[in-house]
Amino acid sequence: MNIQEIIAKKRDGKELNKEEINYFVSKYTDGAITDYQAAALIMAIYINGMNKEEITNLTLEMANSGDILDLSEISKNVIDKHSTGGVGDKITLVLTPIIASLGIPVAKMSGRGLGFTGGTVDKLESIPGYKTDIQIGDFIDNVKKIGISLIGQTANLAPADKKIYALRDAINCVESMPLIASSIMSKKIAAGANKIVLDVTVGSGAFMKNKEDAIKLSNMMKEIGKLADRETVCVLTNMNEPVGYAIGNTLEIIETIECLKGNIPEDIKEIITTIGAYIIKLSGENDNLEENKKMILDNIENGKAYNKFLELVKNQSGDIEYIENPEKFEKAKYIMPVITEKDGFIQELNAEKIGKISVMLGAGRIKKEDNIDKAVGIILNKKISDKVQRGDILAYVHADDEQKGKEAVEKIKEIYKVSEMKIEKEKIILGVI
Amino acid sequence: MNIQEIIAKKRDGKELNKEEINYFVSKYTDGAITDYQAAALIMAIYINGMNKEEITNLTLEMANSGDILDLSEISKNVIDKHSTGGVGDKITLVLTPIIASLGIPVAKMSGRGLGFTGGTVDKLESIPGYKTDIQIGDFIDNVKKIGISLIGQTANLAPADKKIYALRDAINCVESMPLIASSIMSKKIAAGANKIVLDVTVGSGAFMKNKEDAIKLSNMMKEIGKLADRETVCVLTNMNEPVGYAIGNTLEIIETIECLKGNIPEDIKEIITTIGAYIIKLSGENDNLEENKKMILDNIENGKAYNKFLELVKNQSGDIEYIENPEKFEKAKYIMPVITEKDGFIQELNAEKIGKISVMLGAGRIKKEDNIDKAVGIILNKKISDKVQRGDILAYVHADDEQKGKEAVEKIKEIYKVSEMKIEKEKIILGVI
Repeated sequence: MNIQEIIAKKRDGKELNKEEINYFVSKYTDGAITDYQAAALIMAIYINGMNKEEITNLTLEMANSGDILDLSEISKNVIDKHSTGGVGDKITLVLTPIIASLGIPVAKMSGRGLGFTGGTVDKLESIPGYKTDIQIGDFIDNVKKIGISLIGQTANLAPADKKIYALRDAINCVESMPLIASSIMSKKIAAGANKIVLDVTVGSGAFMKNKEDAIKLSNMMKEIGKLADRETVCVLTNMNEPVGYAIGNTLEIIETIECLKGNIPEDIKEIITTIGAYIIKLSGENDNLEENKKMILDNIENGKAYNKFLELVKNQSGDIEYIENPEKFEKAKYIMPVITEKDGFIQELNAEKIGKISVMLGAGRIKKEDNIDKAVGIILNKKISDKVQRGDILAYVHADDEQKGKEAVEKIKEIYKVSEMKIEKEKIILGVI
Repeated sequence: MNIQEIIAKKRDGKELNKEEINYFVSKYTDGAITDYQAAALIMAIYINGMNKEEITNLTLEMANSGDILDLSEISKNVIDKHSTGGVGDKITLVLTPIIASLGIPVAKMSGRGLGFTGGTVDKLESIPGYKTDIQIGDFIDNVKKIGISLIGQTANLAPADKKIYALRDAINCVESMPLIASSIMSKKIAAGANKIVLDVTVGSGAFMKNKEDAIKLSNMMKEIGKLADRETVCVLTNMNEPVGYAIGNTLEIIETIECLKGNIPEDIKEIITTIGAYIIKLSGENDNLEENKKMILDNIENGKAYNKFLELVKNQSGDIEYIENPEKFEKAKYIMPVITEKDGFIQELNAEKIGKISVMLGAGRIKKEDNIDKAVGIILNKKISDKVQRGDILAYVHADDEQKGKEAVEKIKEIYKVSEMKIEKEKIILGVI
């Protein structure tokens, strides 16, 4: 077997067998296959596609390229929750303490932000003292002790996926359904959970721009989950505008605290109750989704979820004074309002574009090596369907660089599309698969 | 403009414009575009194809990536002849002295052998003293003085093609019609001739395995030639078995000398008269192809062609004693007959497989850096349609390594397919386009 024969097969639209996929993944991971040979194969996969068996084999080979965590000592059913990416997406931060407060263990490794989307680990690290890089043994002990631990990816999970993902990015082959599905599922399988709930985002700020593609991707991932013995549920959520009102690391932590105290925006409420209801169901606690939703809202109202968040932060060496007094968080130097000159209704608020401005302000990374500025970001004041009048504030820019702040204000003004006609609120939950 | 956008366009089956093709070719040549990005684009071109305009632009950009020779001082019409590759292909060596002996100037740069095909430059260098690396000025002076010069590629011709070709080889994207057409034509355009005659080989020992593909490729190259103001004629020739009887560097020089003395195998005679007739026509000397063929055969018979070959060798510092006494050429250590155990007719004699055995014996290169052994090779004794009897000699292996020689004998025995039924001779000239 050699890589040239494998390339030729996929080039000609033929199916790759398990041995060929294994050969590619293992030899590319250890460097025996060059980047240019892998690039040729990836492009051929992008154009000619893969069938279910190929996608499953690719997923399992990538999962097996590094450590496979064993979380079975925590509980019979360990549930992982993952989002396919978005802007202002603090669902993990809000939802996991709620789930833990209901007695369902949460052991979650999260990623850092890259491109226009943020990352849970960066957000957690804006809490002074919070440690995200702890050993796997301590991670499991934390969960046993307080029912929750949120950390960065410390184990060597799916290194093949990391290498292939970086290459896909460089050759513009990210948006391929077989490659997205196998990338997500390989990491989830390696991360050790046996039940997976996926937040499949749909819209301008997501990989999947329309519902049809999101359904296709969801079915593909469910199928892989089934073949890999991981029960998988996909919740399709709207990502045409950012989730909630805050975008930026510290700003999203503050919004998370507000949510856990009960001041929860409608879109976040819908997403956490729906995804949370399925997590509770998969855990084996309760099959009734409506009851599950109520349990979630109850534990916000009675303060148990907030207390669990405090416990989490404290247990991972974070300074809970910041959680109890969010005004202690260091603020950006400049807070600049974005003021509209139009009358009407917000028609469009492109999530990807907002995400890119947040990155430009310093909240995210263009390259992996970039440092991030925790304080900067954007607070939205108006969202799609909101009525506005000339002079109203659309958003606030939080900037540490005056020039960048001014630039952001101008750009955000353009991103807010205002219509004279009344605009209906978009649906948040687009389906469950 | 950036390479990722260009990759995405071709990935999605869209047409690349002139600026985009220029960007790719120039930035890849100077190293700003990486091999893996180029590999992704090349694979997308392989799968999604290119239209005529794209192929022409790619050809011209590759031609313009290095020197473009100006041979107009030699003659109004300078004709280049090129073969798409074959085994035992000594047509250039036999034909060019004939053409020069008719008063038509020949200024030809040739390549070295790579893979299973031989190269004219390697063959010329097996004549002791023959210099193939001379300056362009001297090259042109030679042609002015004696009407002919055959050298290696000394100028920096189409460096972009060189880089892209090496990459195509590594990622199994050689056999793509737009890429083959642009590769050949870019070098021909850079080489300075304004009239081009292409020997498009068809069959087991050629890139084009069937006539249909060869016709398509020929039409593509004619079209490029037209748009680049280079009149182009394609002669389709049979490459199911090797050309002539000798394969190997010195062995082919000796066969060349025999041809020029009038002992010319039928297939070589057909090819040189057909291609030669078009060269004479394109030079503006004579439009009547039958008369041209006669002129070619006449100049073999009257010795003028042989004398021109002697003059060429002498003028490029070669030792003509070897030409006048071919028995002086150093022979391989072992000359081993291949003896058949069957009765019947030769049905098949796969040119590519014979070429590979010749390379294995040391006559060619697997990698560019490999040294070649001038004396080794194969002399065929039987060709397709010949009658054979058990005990007949099919071929002679010329080897410097006994073990390799024995291996070659066994393999060649297998390559000769013998049929009980009478086999008709295959047509040599399959068409002219």
